[in-house]
Amino acid sequence: MNEFEIIKKFLLPLSKKNLASLKLNDDIFFDKSKKLAVSLDTYVQGTHFLDFKNPDLVIKKILRASLSDLICKGVKPSYFFISASGNKKYFNYKNMSKITKSLNDEQKKFSIYLSGGDTVKSSLLSFSITSVGFSSKIIYRNKARINDDIYVTGSIGDSFIGLKSLKRKILLSHDLKKYFENKYYMPVLQLKLSKKLLEFANSSIDISDGLIADLEKLINNQRLSYRLYLNKIPISNKAKTLILKKTINLKNMICHGDDYQVLFTASPLKSEIIKNTCKKLGIKISLIGKICSYSKKSLIFDEKGNKINLKFKGYEHQF
Amino acid sequence: MNEFEIIKKFLLPLSKKNLASLKLNDDIFFDKSKKLAVSLDTYVQGTHFLDFKNPDLVIKKILRASLSDLICKGVKPSYFFISASGNKKYFNYKNMSKITKSLNDEQKKFSIYLSGGDTVKSSLLSFSITSVGFSSKIIYRNKARINDDIYVTGSIGDSFIGLKSLKRKILLSHDLKKYFENKYYMPVLQLKLSKKLLEFANSSIDISDGLIADLEKLINNQRLSYRLYLNKIPISNKAKTLILKKTINLKNMICHGDDYQVLFTASPLKSEIIKNTCKKLGIKISLIGKICSYSKKSLIFDEKGNKINLKFKGYEHQF
Repeated sequence: MNEFEIIKKFLLPLSKKNLASLKLNDDIFFDKSKKLAVSLDTYVQGTHFLDFKNPDLVIKKILRASLSDLICKGVKPSYFFISASGNKKYFNYKNMSKITKSLNDEQKKFSIYLSGGDTVKSSLLSFSITSVGFSSKIIYRNKARINDDIYVTGSIGDSFIGLKSLKRKILLSHDLKKYFENKYYMPVLQLKLSKKLLEFANSSIDISDGLIADLEKLINNQRLSYRLYLNKIPISNKAKTLILKKTINLKNMICHGDDYQVLFTASPLKSEIIKNTCKKLGIKISLIGKICSYSKKSLIFDEKGNKINLKFKGYEHQF
Repeated sequence: MNEFEIIKKFLLPLSKKNLASLKLNDDIFFDKSKKLAVSLDTYVQGTHFLDFKNPDLVIKKILRASLSDLICKGVKPSYFFISASGNKKYFNYKNMSKITKSLNDEQKKFSIYLSGGDTVKSSLLSFSITSVGFSSKIIYRNKARINDDIYVTGSIGDSFIGLKSLKRKILLSHDLKKYFENKYYMPVLQLKLSKKLLEFANSSIDISDGLIADLEKLINNQRLSYRLYLNKIPISNKAKTLILKKTINLKNMICHGDDYQVLFTASPLKSEIIKNTCKKLGIKISLIGKICSYSKKSLIFDEKGNKINLKFKGYEHQF
């Protein structure tokens, strides 16, 4: 079973309709009557981060991954809780000092603060982070409409290149290595755009498992399809040079996660306000495709207008 | 470092004053302005539960352990989130069916529902549970007053005997084995008493690490001491027979956790209302000691009035 089969069969029946975030229906929980939004995620060494050589960077990454879930839904995070499982090999004085400094930086950056948590002895290093925010509304998944434009913020794939470099699967120059690995560890979250999204997005998700996989999740309960244009997908200039050198494959880049950019759909009538808002905020925004009816097949076109096939669309947990 | 040293040195400085639950100052987080109470705990195989032979019972136990944190503070839990880390050895069809049934039972029993979570592949089995409730006030730790009576609900130590039986450190008859192991897996939570506690308790905590250890946590930031009377500590009749047979040692029983009973302090002026409330609700309540000034030493007296010494007071995570 993969994680979605487990959730659908065993966990979804336990939830109250429209009041749960079980990954299948949405990424965060929202209680409209209490204006409360909650996101809970667990990060395990080996699955979500490679090692703990840079505890400060690992902590930044997983905290941002957690905050991203709220931010992409139009919710400003207010506070967070961390439960840390590990042993003295990981939680020694030196590492804990780095972690504290790191959390302090992030608290200032995102105007959040640590509100609780747990420390647990375990042979395996893992962290659970619960992020909490308040909002009178959020942007849900599965609310895309036919003919909606599909947008994505920032650039896609830099984080994947960073991960490949960290795994030593590609060899980069010192500067590029630093650039891409930083993108992996410290994804730029679109905090400024967050509240604005509520004004124009019909549906939204953050890209954690991969652009295509997350787009499919965005509309998974809807009878809809999509058309995407490969040459519209935003790639950083640094990544483009690596594609030209064939160090990296473009198709691979858009099917791996950890971007933490916002993927959203909006009516074409909103295109001006989206363009102007992003310009004013200094946020890179790209219109990468269209939502279509279910009678059409979901398709991705390359720069020559040919359909392309992707075998691997993004990460999923197999149990 | 133990968990409290880690929290005090590295995590407490990150929190907003009076608005965090970092185990050192309190067990749950409470945002008065939002009336929101949150508890986050992680449960790891080998540390918090022995094995996964009874997934239904393990789930009941850890969910109740999590809910207990809110209940002992006067908060009725509204919903919960589970993040489950493991692999197909644990999350197979048979186990998942048992887990779903178990969660469904608990949801009905406590009028709560699953509101989100995460499933993560990991070689080590662990669960993080976030419980959420709403209340206009809660009972804090560290608000005990000199001369307060110390009360505890239910019986202490049955769960410890159950754990010893599960570990095969003691051999019990079939009936006793069932009784005590059930107490370990399914602690009785004082849900009915919860809201009433707000009327009379000055300070409260649930017994998860051990009666004495948790009493010391209850007043850890206060310049106070306590006097406890061993013969006042409530022991079930079944446990008493095991003490008489010397299968079990009384001092051991009160220094191990997993009871999930409520330990609270209240003014002696409240003794009547406490007695009457508990009688009406059918809840066993015991007055086991007194809060004293800091100039006195914390003492525990045996049935003959002699001071006793405890080397081990309760569980703590050493990193």
